[in-house]
Amino acid sequence: MTTSQNDLDALSQLGKHAVPPDSPEKATLERVPSPHRGRQYVVRFTAPEFTSLCPVTGQPDFAHIVIDYIPNEWIVESKSLKLYLTSFRNHGAFHEDCSVTIATKLVEVLSPVWLRIGAYWYPRGGIPIDVFWQTGAPPENVWIPAQDVPGYRGRG
Amino acid sequence: MTTSQNDLDALSQLGKHAVPPDSPEKATLERVPSPHRGRQYVVRFTAPEFTSLCPVTGQPDFAHIVIDYIPNEWIVESKSLKLYLTSFRNHGAFHEDCSVTIATKLVEVLSPVWLRIGAYWYPRGGIPIDVFWQTGAPPENVWIPAQDVPGYRGRG
Amino acid sequence: MTTSQNDLDALSQLGKHAVPPDSPEKATLERVPSPHRGRQYVVRFTAPEFTSLCPVTGQPDFAHIVIDYIPNEWIVESKSLKLYLTSFRNHGAFHEDCSVTIATKLVEVLSPVWLRIGAYWYPRGGIPIDVFWQTGAPPENVWIPAQDVPGYRGRG
Amino acid sequence: MTTSQNDLDALSQLGKHAVPPDSPEKATLERVPSPHRGRQYVVRFTAPEFTSLCPVTGQPDFAHIVIDYIPNEWIVESKSLKLYLTSFRNHGAFHEDCSVTIATKLVEVLSPVWLRIGAYWYPRGGIPIDVFWQTGAPPENVWIPAQDVPGYRGRG
Amino acid sequence: MTTSQNDLDALSQLGKHAVPPDSPEKATLERVPSPHRGRQYVVRFTAPEFTSLCPVTGQPDFAHIVIDYIPNEWIVESKSLKLYLTSFRNHGAFHEDCSVTIATKLVEVLSPVWLRIGAYWYPRGGIPIDVFWQTGAPPENVWIPAQDVPGYRGRG
Amino acid sequence: MTTSQNDLDALSQLGKHAVPPDSPEKATLERVPSPHRGRQYVVRFTAPEFTSLCPVTGQPDFAHIVIDYIPNEWIVESKSLKLYLTSFRNHGAFHEDCSVTIATKLVEVLSPVWLRIGAYWYPRGGIPIDVFWQTGAPPENVWIPAQDVPGYRGRG
Amino acid sequence: MTTSQNDLDALSQLGKHAVPPDSPEKATLERVPSPHRGRQYVVRFTAPEFTSLCPVTGQPDFAHIVIDYIPNEWIVESKSLKLYLTSFRNHGAFHEDCSVTIATKLVEVLSPVWLRIGAYWYPRGGIPIDVFWQTGAPPENVWIPAQDVPGYRGRG
Amino acid sequence: MTTSQNDLDALSQLGKHAVPPDSPEKATLERVPSPHRGRQYVVRFTAPEFTSLCPVTGQPDFAHIVIDYIPNEWIVESKSLKLYLTSFRNHGAFHEDCSVTIATKLVEVLSPVWLRIGAYWYPRGGIPIDVFWQTGAPPENVWIPAQDVPGYRGRG
Amino acid sequence: MTTSQNDLDALSQLGKHAVPPDSPEKATLERVPSPHRGRQYVVRFTAPEFTSLCPVTGQPDFAHIVIDYIPNEWIVESKSLKLYLTSFRNHGAFHEDCSVTIATKLVEVLSPVWLRIGAYWYPRGGIPIDVFWQTGAPPENVWIPAQDVPGYRGRG
Amino acid sequence: MTTSQNDLDALSQLGKHAVPPDSPEKATLERVPSPHRGRQYVVRFTAPEFTSLCPVTGQPDFAHIVIDYIPNEWIVESKSLKLYLTSFRNHGAFHEDCSVTIATKLVEVLSPVWLRIGAYWYPRGGIPIDVFWQTGAPPENVWIPAQDVPGYRGRG
Ligand SMILES: [Ca+2]
Ligand SMILES: [Ca+2]
Ligand SMILES: [Ca+2]
Ligand SMILES: [Ca+2]
Ligand SMILES: [Ca+2]
Ligand SMILES: [Ca+2]
Ligand SMILES: [Ca+2]
Ligand SMILES: [Ca+2]
Ligand SMILES: [Ca+2]
Ligand SMILES: [Ca+2]
Ligand SMILES: [Ca+2]
Ligand SMILES: [Ca+2]
Ligand SMILES: [Ca+2]
Ligand SMILES: [Ca+2]
Ligand SMILES: [Ca+2]
Ligand SMILES: [Ca+2]
Repeated sequence: MTTSQNDLDALSQLGKHAVPPDSPEKATLERVPSPHRGRQYVVRFTAPEFTSLCPVTGQPDFAHIVIDYIPNEWIVESKSLKLYLTSFRNHGAFHEDCSVTIATKLVEVLSPVWLRIGAYWYPRGGIPIDVFWQTGAPPENVWIPAQDVPGYRGRG
Repeated sequence: MTTSQNDLDALSQLGKHAVPPDSPEKATLERVPSPHRGRQYVVRFTAPEFTSLCPVTGQPDFAHIVIDYIPNEWIVESKSLKLYLTSFRNHGAFHEDCSVTIATKLVEVLSPVWLRIGAYWYPRGGIPIDVFWQTGAPPENVWIPAQDVPGYRGRG
Repeated sequence: MTTSQNDLDALSQLGKHAVPPDSPEKATLERVPSPHRGRQYVVRFTAPEFTSLCPVTGQPDFAHIVIDYIPNEWIVESKSLKLYLTSFRNHGAFHEDCSVTIATKLVEVLSPVWLRIGAYWYPRGGIPIDVFWQTGAPPENVWIPAQDVPGYRGRG
Repeated sequence: MTTSQNDLDALSQLGKHAVPPDSPEKATLERVPSPHRGRQYVVRFTAPEFTSLCPVTGQPDFAHIVIDYIPNEWIVESKSLKLYLTSFRNHGAFHEDCSVTIATKLVEVLSPVWLRIGAYWYPRGGIPIDVFWQTGAPPENVWIPAQDVPGYRGRG
Repeated sequence: MTTSQNDLDALSQLGKHAVPPDSPEKATLERVPSPHRGRQYVVRFTAPEFTSLCPVTGQPDFAHIVIDYIPNEWIVESKSLKLYLTSFRNHGAFHEDCSVTIATKLVEVLSPVWLRIGAYWYPRGGIPIDVFWQTGAPPENVWIPAQDVPGYRGRG
Repeated sequence: MTTSQNDLDALSQLGKHAVPPDSPEKATLERVPSPHRGRQYVVRFTAPEFTSLCPVTGQPDFAHIVIDYIPNEWIVESKSLKLYLTSFRNHGAFHEDCSVTIATKLVEVLSPVWLRIGAYWYPRGGIPIDVFWQTGAPPENVWIPAQDVPGYRGRG
Repeated sequence: MTTSQNDLDALSQLGKHAVPPDSPEKATLERVPSPHRGRQYVVRFTAPEFTSLCPVTGQPDFAHIVIDYIPNEWIVESKSLKLYLTSFRNHGAFHEDCSVTIATKLVEVLSPVWLRIGAYWYPRGGIPIDVFWQTGAPPENVWIPAQDVPGYRGRG
Repeated sequence: MTTSQNDLDALSQLGKHAVPPDSPEKATLERVPSPHRGRQYVVRFTAPEFTSLCPVTGQPDFAHIVIDYIPNEWIVESKSLKLYLTSFRNHGAFHEDCSVTIATKLVEVLSPVWLRIGAYWYPRGGIPIDVFWQTGAPPENVWIPAQDVPGYRGRG
Repeated sequence: MTTSQNDLDALSQLGKHAVPPDSPEKATLERVPSPHRGRQYVVRFTAPEFTSLCPVTGQPDFAHIVIDYIPNEWIVESKSLKLYLTSFRNHGAFHEDCSVTIATKLVEVLSPVWLRIGAYWYPRGGIPIDVFWQTGAPPENVWIPAQDVPGYRGRG
Repeated sequence: MTTSQNDLDALSQLGKHAVPPDSPEKATLERVPSPHRGRQYVVRFTAPEFTSLCPVTGQPDFAHIVIDYIPNEWIVESKSLKLYLTSFRNHGAFHEDCSVTIATKLVEVLSPVWLRIGAYWYPRGGIPIDVFWQTGAPPENVWIPAQDVPGYRGRG
C-alpha cells in the first residue's frame, strides 16, 4: 500500500508555504497512513538544528536530536515535524522536560508501535546533558541500529 | 558446491552489454544458485550511489543503501542488482516507500532465509530520514555485523 | 508534570553566585523533582574537566567522567553537580576509590532507579586506568546507549 | 600588562545578568584593553550555536562560525560577543551578507590588526554554503593555524 | 550594500516552483549583485549529490563537487545553481570534461575575481578520478581554506 | 602448556624459505598444538592484502579479510596461513564462494571450537560485497569483540 | 572502605625506586585490598607499550594490551603491574602464549570475580594477530564496556 | 574542445574486452587528447589495489598509489592505466624502483606539464616505506591539493 | 654533545620528590644545556592537563596547551615545566593573559631561537577561545609541523 | 638504473639471519645505490615500534618515529635500518638526544640531499615530547608531504 493523493490532500503544510509556528502549542503535527502498514520498520529522524530557550535565563539552548519509531497505522509527515521542532525556538523548558515532551507529543499523534528519543544537548557549565527515553522495550523482531552520536570531548 | 557454467549461461546481463532499465518495473533482478547452499552466511551490498525522484516535486533524492541477507537457495546476481537500483533514477516515491519496496522485491526473487535494508537518505529541510526494515528476527546462529553507517551531523 | 517555581526556590545554588566548595564534604548536591516522574528515562552527564589529587604525591590527577542514571522521584540539579565535581580539586584519593565515591554520593541523594559511572583517567606511568560501576542490572525496558569513550592509544 | 579592575568596571554585561538583545542593532559589543598590547597574538572564537532567519521564508538558518583576529589595542569582551551573536536569532539575512556583517561589526569595534571569519552554514537544498572573509593579508610573523572545519559529506 | 527587493524580483526560480531542467543547455544559471561588493570574500558550495551519465555506456556516474569563488559584482543565486547541477542528471560526458565545463559556465555567468572546482568522482574500475581546476593564481590577500575532501581508501 | 620444540620441528614452512604456492590446492595449511589447550580464547587474523581473480574476466579482485576462531586442540601456524592466503593470487572464484572456501579449509585443518570469517571486498560497479560466515553460535562464555571494519562510503 | 596506610606500607614498589625486573619470573605483582570491597566494579588497564621477543628469531614483538577485571578482595597495585609488563621486554614467547600467560598470572594473584585480556599485536608478515581471553562469562549485573580497539588497516 | 569519436576509435582497450597484460613491458598505456587543452587542470588517480612481487623472495607486496598530473596535450585513458598497473602483479622490483618507474612511464606517454606519484607501501618488518616523486616544481598558478593519505599507526 | 652528569646535578627537581608549587611565582623553571647545541631542532610539549581559575568567579578553567620551541643554548627540564604548569592550578587569570604569560616565562628562561604557544581552552558560554602566539617568524630552514588540534564541534 | 645483484651481494644482513645488535654502536647501517640516482625523490620510513631506555631510571621509553630523506647516491637498506632502530632497545638516552642521534647517523651513512626526523614520544608525567629536526631547507622542487602524526589528546 502506498501513500494516496487523498492522504496528501488532507495535509495543511506539505507543498505549501508554511509560516513557522510561534510555540509548540500552536504547531500542528500531521500524519499520513504508513505506506507498508503490515510491516514493522523503523524510521529515524536526525535533527541537528534544534534550539529552545532556558526557562530561567532566557538564553538559547541547542540540541542534536535523534528520533526513532516503528509506525503502527501512521507515519509523521516530515515537514510538519520540522515545523513542530522549529516551534520550540522561543519556548522555555529544561533539558529533561523538553526532550520527553517532544517524544510524548509524537506518541499522541502517531500511536506508534514503539518510539524513542535521544537528545544530545550542547554543554552549559562545561557539562552537557543527554536525555534518552523510549516507550518501552522494542518488539523483538525489529531491527533498530544504535544512534551512535559521539560523546562530548571538551578540547584537544 | 560452486557456481556452474550452466548457472551463468542462464543470465541475461552479467558479462554482456546491459542498458540501464527505465524503471523498476522494467528491471530484471536475476539470481544464481548459492555456492554453499547448506551454509547460512550473510551477504552485504553497500550502494552509496542510489538516487530516485521526489514524487511531489520531481527533485532528485539520494540515499546510501545497505542490504544484508542470508541466502536460502539463491544469491542475487550482482550486476542485475546494480541495474535494478539504477532503474529508480527516474522513479518517484517517498523515502519510506522506496526503501521497503526494494527489500520486498529482493525477498520475492530470492526467498532468502532473512533480509534487511538500511536506507540512509540525504537531508531535506535539514533533517535526514533513515529507514530500517528486516523480514523478521534473524536466525540465532548466524553472524550479522552492525551496519554502522555514521549519523548525520549538520556542520562543524 | 514539570518543574515548579517552588522546586526552584528551594535550591541554594542555581541562579545564584556560588563559590566552589573546598572539599567534597562541604559540597551540597541538590535535587529537584523529576519532570516526568512516571517515566523511566536516562540522563547522562559528561564531565571532561574532572581533577583531583594523588593521595600519595599530591600531584594532580585528571579524568573524563560520564554518569548515566534513571531518575526515580528526583533529578540532580546540574549546577550543584558541577560544584560537587569541582570540589574534588584539592581532594586526594585513588582512582578506583574516587570514581565509586562519586557514584555512591549520587545514589544517596537521588535514590535513582539505576545509576552507573565511567571514569576514564589520564595515563600515569604510560598506563591509564578506567573504572566502571553500576548499581546493578538496568531495568529491561529502558534504553541506555553505550558511553563509547575512545580508548587510549599512546602515540602515532 | 594585564586587565585592570577599571577595565572591567566599565563593562555593562560581564558578571551581570544580561538579557539577550532583540536584534544586532540593539546589541552592544564591548571591548577591554588587550592584556599584552605589544604582542601580536591570535584569538579564535568558535561559535557552533549560531542561528538566524532566512529573509525570504522566515525559516531558521544555522551556522558554525569561527572568528580569528589579532588585537591591536583592544580585545572583545567574550560575553558581549556571545550576546551579539545571539541577537541574530530573529534577524533575517542571506548567508553571504550575514557572515560579512558580523566581521564588519567586529572590525569597527576592535580596529584589529587583522581579522577573518569562516561561516559554515548548514545545508539547504542539499548544498551548504561556506563564506570566508579576512580584512587583508595577515602580518607575516604571526602564527594563524588553519580553521580545519570538516567539509560537508552528505550521507554514508 | 545588501541584496535589494529588485534584485530578487528579477529572479525566475528562487521562491518559485521550479521544474528541474532536462539538460545543462536548458538550465538558467542566475545571479544577484554581491551584497558586499567592495570586499573579496570566498563563497564555497559543496554538492555531494552530483550525478551524470557515462557518454559511452549510459551508466550513471557520481561525484562529490566543491566550488570556491571570489565574487566580483555578482554572486550566483543558489537555487539556480542547484538546478543547473541537477540538469546533468541525464547528460553524458567524461569526468575531466564535465568538471571543467561546470566551472567554465560559472565563470561566464559570474565573471568572478577567481574560481576553482574540485570534482571527486566515485570509483570506476577500482580507481577514482579527481579533477582540480582554477582560473589562475588566487589574489594574494584573500583567505581560501583547503577543501580537504578525504581520499579514497578502498576497503578495510 | 606451551609450544614444544617437537611441535615446531614438524613444520615445513616456519623459519624456512618458503615459495608462495601456485594455487590453494597446492598450499599446505599447518598447525601446532594450542599453547593453553584447556582454555577457550579467540585468535583473530587480519589480512588486508588478500587478492584473487574474477573467474569470468580474469581481472584481479581485492579483499580485506578478518578471521576469528576459538582453538580446540590446534592453532594454525601463521606463516602457513599467510602462504595459503597468498595462494589465491592466481585463483579465480566468486566473492561468496572464495570467502566461505577459506573458512571451510581452516575448519578442516583445525577442527576449532568455533570459527568465523568476514570478507570485505573492494567495490566493483560501485557496490562492494561483504560476506560473513561462522560455524554456528559461539560458545556463551567466550569473549569475541566485534570486527568493526568500517563500511564503504563512496566519495566525499 | 578506603585503602589504609597499612595496606600501602606493605608494598615494595609503590612510591619507591624500583628497578625493572629482568624477567616475568623475577617480577612481583602486588595487590592491595579493594577500596569498595562489597561492590562489583570493573577496572581497565590500557598498556600501549608492551614489548617482548620472538622465541624463534629474538626479534622484538609489540602489542597494545587491554585488561579488564572485576576485583574480589584485591585490586592490583598499578606500579607493580607496570613493572610486571615491562619484565617481558627480554622474554621470548609466542603471541597466543604470552597473552594468556599475563592473564593467568593476574588471576593467580588477584582471584578476581572475572578477568579478560585483549592483546592486539603489531603485524608480522602483513597479518596481525589479536588474542582475546576471559575467565568465563562475566557476572550479569556488572557493566563492562567494549574495548573498541580499532582494527588493522594496512595502508591508504 | 571535447573528446571526439575519432579519438575513441583509436583506442585498443576502452569499451572492449581486455585481458590483463602479463608484465609492464607488455602493457599498452594509451592516451586521448585533453578535453580542455588550453587549461591547466590536475587529474588525480587513486589506486588502492596495487600489487607487485618482491624481487628477492617472490612474496607479494602491496601499495596504495596516488598519481597527480597536469595534462599538456594528452590525458591518459583510464582503462589502459588500470591495466598497466595490474601488469605489475607478477613483476618483481624494489619499492623505490617500482614507484618511480610507474611515474617515468606516464611521463613518457603523456609529456605532461607536471606529474607526481605518492606510493604508500604496506609494512614489511613493521616499517612501511613511502615514496614521493614529482617531475619538478609545479606551475605556480595551478591548484594541487595535498594527497593526505594517513600515516601508518601500528596497533591500538 | 650530550647532557652531562654536571648538568643534571644542578637540577633541584628532576629525580627528586617535588611538591607542586602553590603559584606560578613560586615555581622554578629549570634548564639544561641543549644536547645538540649547534642544531636547530624543534621540541614540542603537549599538555592536555592544564587548569587555572577564572579571576572573576573563581571557577576552574581548563585548557589543552601545545608549546613548540627551537632551543638556542638551553632546553627546558621537563619535570620543572610540568610543575610550572601545575602551579597555575590555584591562579586566576584571563585566557589571553594566561596563555601569553606562560610563553613569556619560557622565553625568559630559555632565550630560545623561536617559541610559540597554542592554548585551546574548554568552552564557556558555548564558545571556546583559542590563543596563538609566537615570538616572531620562525627561522626559514627549520621544520615545524602544524599543531593540528581539532576544532570544537559542539554536539552531534 | 636499478639495483644490481652486485649491490645486494655486498650486504651483510638482507636475506640472511640477522641477530639484533646489542647497542647502536654495534649496529651496521647499510646502503645500496639509489635506483634512480638522477632523480630527487623522497623516501619515508614509519617506525611505530621504537623503544629505548631512560638514562636516569632505566625505565623503557617508547616513540613513534618518521624519517624522510632525499637520496643522493645511496638509499638505506631497510632491514639494516630496522636492526639499527632495534639496537636502541637497551640503550639509555634523553628524548631530544636520541632523536637527533638517529638522524645524524643516517646523514653520515647516506650523505643524503636532505633528511628530517619526527620523533613522537609516548607521554611521561602526562606531557609527551615531540622532536623535529631536518638537515636544512629542503630543495625547492621536491615534493615532501606533511607527516601528519596526530597530536596527543589525553583522555575522552
Ligand atoms: Ca558504538
Ligand atoms: Ca583534552
Ligand atoms: Ca558501532
Ligand atoms: Ca555543529
Ligand atoms: Ca603507535
Ligand atoms: Ca587540514
Ligand atoms: Ca555517500
Ligand atoms: Ca585495506
Ligand atoms: Ca558523498
Ligand atoms: Ca564498536
Ligand atoms: Ca588500502
Ligand atoms: Ca590536510
Ligand atoms: Ca599503539
Ligand atoms: Ca551538531
Ligand atoms: Ca594536517
Ligand atoms: Ca578530555
